[in-house]
Amino acid sequence: MLKADERIDQLFRLDIQIIQSPSVFSYSMDAVLLADFAQLPKRGTIVDLCAGNGAVGLFMSPKTNGQIIGVELQERLADMAQRSIELNDLTDQVTMLNMDLKDVNTKIHKDSVDIVTCNPPYFKVEPNSQKNPNQHLALARHEIATDLRTVVQTMSGLLKMNGKGYLVHRPERFLEICDELRAARMEPKRVRFVYPKAGKEANMVLIEAVKDGKKGGLRMLPELTIYDQDSHYTPEMRTKLFMADND
Amino acid sequence: MLKADERIDQLFRLDIQIIQSPSVFSYSMDAVLLADFAQLPKRGTIVDLCAGNGAVGLFMSPKTNGQIIGVELQERLADMAQRSIELNDLTDQVTMLNMDLKDVNTKIHKDSVDIVTCNPPYFKVEPNSQKNPNQHLALARHEIATDLRTVVQTMSGLLKMNGKGYLVHRPERFLEICDELRAARMEPKRVRFVYPKAGKEANMVLIEAVKDGKKGGLRMLPELTIYDQDSHYTPEMRTKLFMADND
Repeated sequence: MLKADERIDQLFRLDIQIIQSPSVFSYSMDAVLLADFAQLPKRGTIVDLCAGNGAVGLFMSPKTNGQIIGVELQERLADMAQRSIELNDLTDQVTMLNMDLKDVNTKIHKDSVDIVTCNPPYFKVEPNSQKNPNQHLALARHEIATDLRTVVQTMSGLLKMNGKGYLVHRPERFLEICDELRAARMEPKRVRFVYPKAGKEANMVLIEAVKDGKKGGLRMLPELTIYDQDSHYTPEMRTKLFMADND
Repeated sequence: MLKADERIDQLFRLDIQIIQSPSVFSYSMDAVLLADFAQLPKRGTIVDLCAGNGAVGLFMSPKTNGQIIGVELQERLADMAQRSIELNDLTDQVTMLNMDLKDVNTKIHKDSVDIVTCNPPYFKVEPNSQKNPNQHLALARHEIATDLRTVVQTMSGLLKMNGKGYLVHRPERFLEICDELRAARMEPKRVRFVYPKAGKEANMVLIEAVKDGKKGGLRMLPELTIYDQDSHYTPEMRTKLFMADND
């Protein structure tokens, strides 16, 4: 079942196995926090865009009985995700679509989805920007095959009225993200900044936006700090990583 | 020198005396944090809008040799500020203008100021909004005599190109503040969210915006937490409050 460069990883005590490959894609802390941040209904349809090896959808699966559909452009990553779904015996709940998210409405109706999550590529492609020479990793990190506007418009198009979109992204693009969300009829409602350590600038932001939500009323949730001063995970992070006392 | 309802307060070891009156105006933590957050040039002109009893300008005075001009609409508060300036022997450095900020350009030239600070009224006036029956306090807290747009446009009008504006405000209005800043040629560059305690939502935000600054590149500074779990000031707050070990 595993290809030569692949391994199976597990998030501490969370009983989900994920096929990873350092040479094409491994999930990051960002995926763990996005799956944790998203508030899921008991039932309904949940779509994860830019799904990569399916980590966000797999991590969300114990939180809901709803259907989870991952959308991933790269065939190799979608195949890894599909094998992870099978490995975890989740084929009844989680499915993968190997396609460009811009074409997703050929497979999922507009205005039909309860929740959309996305951990998109973070970095703009500038004329001189350094990109990873590994094309798999470059596509996941840089806006080569898609961009923020396309992601947000696709998210909004899929969602029902009052459906919720969840994004993880970089704080330096926060205002641009909010502009794009609002332009796509999505109102940012809950935001959580993530700081690597006390005294350090935020390096991640989690955003919840509501389709056709009323303007205003933004809540800035408690800060989340990853490491304590001894570079150990903070108690809240240990919980989010499913760590037990002896981990 | 003091009126019946007034007293003189001092911020722990900071050698600045401030005349306060609980029945008309007392400075808050917000003023302390705004004065601390503003990065001041050694020389130049600094204007503090919505100056109240002058606390922000007085707290900033040890940080610069520049001229500090407070602008306050309420005659009673401007008078308290003026007496505090005299009490601290700061009449050469700090001055007060008792006027509506919308008329400030009759006294201070447009495009002439290096730094503008403002701790404005936080709350919109809605048809049914509860306002303090004390008119002095209502004017300081609610957008009765001015509003966010006027504050931001006045700030931008005063500033030189690349001059910096500093605001303290409520997080729920953060996106609106950024919209108003950008509409007034001010680009938000450094933002600091203030949390009352770990695990609580942010209840204050400090914003630095640069006039005619390049779009993007927003930095989310380290979180600032006011109290530890035992409801004592955190070490960083003790420093900002000029507390000594035995305070």
